Amino acid sequence: MKILITGAAGLIGRILRKNLAEHELHLLDKKGIDGSIIADISNFKEIVQHFSGIDVVIHLAASTGIHTEWDGVLKNNIIGTYNVFEASRKAGVKKIIYASSNHVTGGYELVDPPLYEQNEKKQIMITHETPMRPDGLYAVSKCFGELLGKYYSEKYGISVICLRIGTVLKDDKPKNKRYLATWLSHRDLVQLVKKCIEGDVKYDIFYGVSNNKRRFWDISHARKILGYDPIDDAEVFFHHF
Amino acid sequence: MKILITGAAGLIGRILRKNLAEHELHLLDKKGIDGSIIADISNFKEIVQHFSGIDVVIHLAASTGIHTEWDGVLKNNIIGTYNVFEASRKAGVKKIIYASSNHVTGGYELVDPPLYEQNEKKQIMITHETPMRPDGLYAVSKCFGELLGKYYSEKYGISVICLRIGTVLKDDKPKNKRYLATWLSHRDLVQLVKKCIEGDVKYDIFYGVSNNKRRFWDISHARKILGYDPIDDAEVFFHHF
Repeated sequence: MKILITGAAGLIGRILRKNLAEHELHLLDKKGIDGSIIADISNFKEIVQHFSGIDVVIHLAASTGIHTEWDGVLKNNIIGTYNVFEASRKAGVKKIIYASSNHVTGGYELVDPPLYEQNEKKQIMITHETPMRPDGLYAVSKCFGELLGKYYSEKYGISVICLRIGTVLKDDKPKNKRYLATWLSHRDLVQLVKKCIEGDVKYDIFYGVSNNKRRFWDISHARKILGYDPIDDAEVFFHHF
Repeated sequence: MKILITGAAGLIGRILRKNLAEHELHLLDKKGIDGSIIADISNFKEIVQHFSGIDVVIHLAASTGIHTEWDGVLKNNIIGTYNVFEASRKAGVKKIIYASSNHVTGGYELVDPPLYEQNEKKQIMITHETPMRPDGLYAVSKCFGELLGKYYSEKYGISVICLRIGTVLKDDKPKNKRYLATWLSHRDLVQLVKKCIEGDVKYDIFYGVSNNKRRFWDISHARKILGYDPIDDAEVFFHHF
């Protein structure tokens, strides 16, 4: 399949482009990387021609800092995401895998003691059906993207999958207590994205998290719909810090 | 109370400013009307000073057409609403009553036969807890506003009330079958907004609809939380067309 990855120069983009070699990858980023298209998603005219002939768009490009201020959120996440959806529609793209964020429901974590310290028995489990509760402007922009995707899916028949990605780390090792709950290992990320590429989904939302003992995000829905079967559990890192 | 109404020149603004005379009203609109501040909510610097000393903001200003294209939605509804929330926060405003829209859940109406024709027994009732399902870019922008409001409420302690307003008509008379379900009479609108001004609410969402026989939006939540007790039922217009 012909797959366009936006934000291909970022951490998740790098992991994915190394592991989706069975597909014809088109890389797009405002920073140039080997073989990539240099284009900024906040500029519709700059990106639109690169969507023609594409089967699947993996939309990662964004201001990814959870404390990003409004100007960055507006430009890169709101306008940029609209541009990516609209360019996909015009080009007849069949599927968009949208990098949403766990922060869409981040408001539920803001309890004392923190959620990751009180969930060993999994008494709290946030699912794709739990009402959104964004914890910042970044998170609000990811809510926006999910709802825009829902509309594009229903109106134009594009398959849209929103991945509320957990904590993906450069060295693939959880380094604090929260990450014991929220970690998504590189290989589980790759598996989840491959299942999304293969799966037959009209519109859905999945949490991207490894099978961590202390997790508070549901994976049963991704297991049921996609067959996602994560290999890793952050608990093995428990004594490392 | 000192109440600032944005979009005061519009239909709902006109109804409210005639009926909230017990308060000190500050009117803001990009079109000038008698005694109003002429300012465009899409320009933060133009509006920010007008929020100081205000107790309650009634935020009506928007591109209100449900088929508004992206440029208008972005400028007036997304950027404009952010500016209004941020100006309110900076000024210490205590409450924002946000004119959301029934189109936030408009996707549920897109069935055949239409929802308003098959709901006499109220077997379908959309509530504030029903997942959002926007039916256009306009509706997506109203979802954005509700979620931005949720964040501002939780982060900054501002009371935010989202009103998913039904069909408000200039001559106050339903003229088609859908309106028999969706009508909100002027006096019920005024009552609902007054209850919002008086009520003690951290964050909530209410449908703005009269007590129509054929309605498919819940009013029991507004009745319980606010004491909203609508007087009108569109059914009296049934034989008028």
